[in-house]
Amino acid sequence: MTNTQLTTPCLLLDTARMTRNIVRMRTRLQSLGVALRPHVKTCKNIDIARQLTAGQPGGITVSTLAEADYFFEHGMTDILYAVGIAPGKLPAVADRLSRGMALRIILDHPQTAKAIARAAGELGVGFRVLVEIDADGERAGLRADAPEMVEIAAILERAGCRVDGVMVHAGGSYHCVDIDGMRRMAEQERASAVAAAKRLRRAGHEAPVVSVGSTPTATFAEDLTGATEVRAGVHVFQDLVQAGLGVCEIDDIAISVLSEVIGHRTEDGKLLVDAGWMALSRDRGTAEQALDQGYGLVCNVSGKPFEDVIVTGTNQEHGIIGKRDGSSLNLDEFPVGSRLRILPNHACATAAQHDGYWIIDSPDQAQRWLPRCRGW
Amino acid sequence: MTNTQLTTPCLLLDTARMTRNIVRMRTRLQSLGVALRPHVKTCKNIDIARQLTAGQPGGITVSTLAEADYFFEHGMTDILYAVGIAPGKLPAVADRLSRGMALRIILDHPQTAKAIARAAGELGVGFRVLVEIDADGERAGLRADAPEMVEIAAILERAGCRVDGVMVHAGGSYHCVDIDGMRRMAEQERASAVAAAKRLRRAGHEAPVVSVGSTPTATFAEDLTGATEVRAGVHVFQDLVQAGLGVCEIDDIAISVLSEVIGHRTEDGKLLVDAGWMALSRDRGTAEQALDQGYGLVCNVSGKPFEDVIVTGTNQEHGIIGKRDGSSLNLDEFPVGSRLRILPNHACATAAQHDGYWIIDSPDQAQRWLPRCRGW
Repeated sequence: MTNTQLTTPCLLLDTARMTRNIVRMRTRLQSLGVALRPHVKTCKNIDIARQLTAGQPGGITVSTLAEADYFFEHGMTDILYAVGIAPGKLPAVADRLSRGMALRIILDHPQTAKAIARAAGELGVGFRVLVEIDADGERAGLRADAPEMVEIAAILERAGCRVDGVMVHAGGSYHCVDIDGMRRMAEQERASAVAAAKRLRRAGHEAPVVSVGSTPTATFAEDLTGATEVRAGVHVFQDLVQAGLGVCEIDDIAISVLSEVIGHRTEDGKLLVDAGWMALSRDRGTAEQALDQGYGLVCNVSGKPFEDVIVTGTNQEHGIIGKRDGSSLNLDEFPVGSRLRILPNHACATAAQHDGYWIIDSPDQAQRWLPRCRGW
Repeated sequence: MTNTQLTTPCLLLDTARMTRNIVRMRTRLQSLGVALRPHVKTCKNIDIARQLTAGQPGGITVSTLAEADYFFEHGMTDILYAVGIAPGKLPAVADRLSRGMALRIILDHPQTAKAIARAAGELGVGFRVLVEIDADGERAGLRADAPEMVEIAAILERAGCRVDGVMVHAGGSYHCVDIDGMRRMAEQERASAVAAAKRLRRAGHEAPVVSVGSTPTATFAEDLTGATEVRAGVHVFQDLVQAGLGVCEIDDIAISVLSEVIGHRTEDGKLLVDAGWMALSRDRGTAEQALDQGYGLVCNVSGKPFEDVIVTGTNQEHGIIGKRDGSSLNLDEFPVGSRLRILPNHACATAAQHDGYWIIDSPDQAQRWLPRCRGW
């Protein structure tokens, strides 16, 4: 199948770019002396996860138990479920532990600790947990000096659970405006995690795991002393948000949505394509960056970007493509039936709209299809 | 399974509300003397589509060939594929026609007409088409007085294709600020379609089909003389965008996302739940309405909305819930492990994030699961 034969819209994966991205992050973290525990919520595919973990000592990070199950069925056992555990999921976690999955869960609230302790008793299971630490007020976690941290660890240890350490995700790195900002955020993330782990150790817990990371902080951290692993995921594909941050270049972006021109809006010099938000996602992550990429940056069928041509609007199965500055496209360059590729704002969100990837091994040739896991 | 036992996040469907919505639209269109051809891109499920089409003379509307295949496999044959046809899909359309699907396609460009004519010759197929008409400059279609319309019809007829009429979708109805505006938009939609059909008939085409509709215009049209069918879809579930327009009430909204509290942000009085954009979608359709509902309006586990509690932010698997005015929630009312339901901005987008629905037949009891079709 070639790019002119595939059913549109569909998701293309450029494996040469992906491999370059994977190697770059691996090399970087090796030079910093810290393991990668890749977040596989971006790829949700076992072949890609195997490439991400090759040569790495640790396991993987997931965002759902459905991902944990999928990767476990394919032989991966060391799994961190990096979303604060919902107490309602504890029986499901216990079931995975009993089947040999080395699954760690995270929490940041004494109420959760009590629910875990109660479930540990009722189900006869020793859960393995990391305490989630907040480095930047962005989402979840306890501050490194929060009194609840030691309280949580004590509740869990009394219930026969293992407090394996701490994890932190500096989501604030996505709001940085320059590389210095991301460097500082990486240090803030590292320092918070290390300080929290020290407090746990002082309270008598071994806390061997100090887990940090986001793609921006992993890319720009200058020192990761004390961290034992880095969680990055988006780096596998990169995207326009990462390019806008300075984390990657546009030509590092490894996934794109293939679409076909279905009409012309002669009155405003725009195109209609058969990729709407169902294929692109509603993500507008570049809207708050210096360069707003609309719903995606438009490339020719071989993947070469057109200067300043973006998806300016979407409906469910329609995309509207125009110039960034609102001027008219030369519609003769884009006859109905011609094909375009659209680079995503956010790789995780766009990939999630598709059941799998068509692998592009040469610029115009799709040769293999890789599935993605789904659901919860 | 009850609402406290289902794996979160998941999509709940209140069938009593859905039935009320379906009956209301059916009654309304019967009183206007026009058939409903429901757009099943919202529900993507055969049982719901059967309820939508019960007592209707016509078929269904779809947004992808994957939907067409799914509904055809379940016995529905009269199908309008209401996205401007991509020439690359014509062999697939021909294949469906040869298997007995009464599939109509739409177009608005002479280039498409030529591609259809060419494919008709090469594949030995008489395609059945509607010409897409633009009522409001919102998305696609030819103006009712565009010279290309008659040109397109002539190209197609010469190639042995049937020009069955016209279709128009007044997407501009979503930008109306009051009911009068939607009434006027409905009339504009109707008048454009009828005028275009008249031109086709004057040019010698039978053009029996005059297809109009959107949920807002279908809800407020006062006269549909000359229209032969109305396409509405979102009305089956309704959503916060429709409520914001005045098309429905909040308690008409039939789908919600069930989620569980996983943490508290004591510093700003917000909650964390296990439903992020993966479960809610990134749709922010109420952002430009008078009442911005964030990523969704929050209800208790039985579906009763909290006043002014919305999802203020999302990550992939995290939702942040707070008060609309930024004041603090009383976090004691929402202990970790408690469950909440979130009403969607846009039913099509939120439902698309899920593989199916849990049916709620009593307020707290999920009794049956209905699958959704996916992909292209």
